[in-house]
Amino acid sequence: MSPPRALFFDVFGTCVDWRSGVARDVAAMAARHGASVDAHAIADAWRAEYQPQMQTVRDGSRPWVTLDVLHRESLDGVLAGTALAGIPAADRDALTRAWHRLDPWPDTVAGLARMKARAVIAPHSNGHIALLLNMAKRAGLPWDVILGSETARAYKPLPESYLRNVAAIGLAPHEVMMVAAHNDDLAAAAACGLRTAFVPRPAEHGPGQMTDLDPAGDYDLVAGDLVHLAELVER
Amino acid sequence: MSPPRALFFDVFGTCVDWRSGVARDVAAMAARHGASVDAHAIADAWRAEYQPQMQTVRDGSRPWVTLDVLHRESLDGVLAGTALAGIPAADRDALTRAWHRLDPWPDTVAGLARMKARAVIAPHSNGHIALLLNMAKRAGLPWDVILGSETARAYKPLPESYLRNVAAIGLAPHEVMMVAAHNDDLAAAAACGLRTAFVPRPAEHGPGQMTDLDPAGDYDLVAGDLVHLAELVER
Repeated sequence: MSPPRALFFDVFGTCVDWRSGVARDVAAMAARHGASVDAHAIADAWRAEYQPQMQTVRDGSRPWVTLDVLHRESLDGVLAGTALAGIPAADRDALTRAWHRLDPWPDTVAGLARMKARAVIAPHSNGHIALLLNMAKRAGLPWDVILGSETARAYKPLPESYLRNVAAIGLAPHEVMMVAAHNDDLAAAAACGLRTAFVPRPAEHGPGQMTDLDPAGDYDLVAGDLVHLAELVER
Repeated sequence: MSPPRALFFDVFGTCVDWRSGVARDVAAMAARHGASVDAHAIADAWRAEYQPQMQTVRDGSRPWVTLDVLHRESLDGVLAGTALAGIPAADRDALTRAWHRLDPWPDTVAGLARMKARAVIAPHSNGHIALLLNMAKRAGLPWDVILGSETARAYKPLPESYLRNVAAIGLAPHEVMMVAAHNDDLAAAAACGLRTAFVPRPAEHGPGQMTDLDPAGDYDLVAGDLVHLAELVER
């Protein structure tokens, strides 16, 4: 096969470690308030709200909003019953921006830089432009262009999220490869005609992760990490 | 003043030399057809259609469309009466993409790279994402994020083109500096609360240029080129 002209990357979990980053900022907030919490449990509970919240946008119950809006809305329920239940609104706003401050996996920056030399590299994330931009500047993610739910005005895995972003860069679906650690993202991308690469991230959900450990579809590539993927794409 | 957190750059004329680039591709097309044309006159005539065309989008007469659509529509009239009037549609389509293949001014890449180390740098162009992305990959323009008429769904100098793109990166207007070689762009940006930097490009329109040779407003910065601007922004 000819190499893809662009690579679209899922971000949360595939490129960055959201669980450790959010837990770090939750723990720092708890320390500031002298509160004792299970920071990783809060990160997990917060992330668990993500899909049901986005579903209300996907099904048309509400217009498209940024992840900052969704994260801030769900945070109150996540903190209820924890020792951080009483923190002021300004602290909740600050904690919401933890999702802008996530660290890349050790292979991410090197892998992206290598792929950027031969193809367009772009996030294709449900994150919005400001979040992805702040994350990229802090972590050194060398995107050529920032795509995602905001440029498509649709959340993955809706087909229009993939197809509008492919069209925005002037390519056809088969010229673009979707890279993700999540089988559902790749299944949706493949149904839109994109090529697919699975990169498992078995530590995304912490110890005992049971999902997305193995490819569940007939993907074009399966790589151990993003540096390995860069090698495979060059073949 | 504190340094701007983001710099928005006009692209056609400010960062790249559209006149030489378009004339080069027109001349190549003429050579292929054994035709004799004034390639720079064609580039100038094509560019002259740009503002009246965009005005039909700005005033609501038609929905937002990409510059590829506008450039392709105006090309037929531009070529009429020249030795290229009879070229086939496929050649017209190829020539339209000349606007994706423009060379930077000699100081552009170095200036942008230096400013990128301290701030977000983004095009804020009436070009669309695919055009700006293709241009950036070819010319090495190291944008952090690609903004412009497509992300705002509005053409400059409408206020919403500036304000929506400022909002998209999560900043306030006073945290962003608009950089342009065009007084009208900077006047519109200033009216929206953005900071402003004028970088004259006296060769943009070729020999005998009479417009935009000097700053016509009270801008925050005036620089000789983008490397000079990088020095001024760091002070």
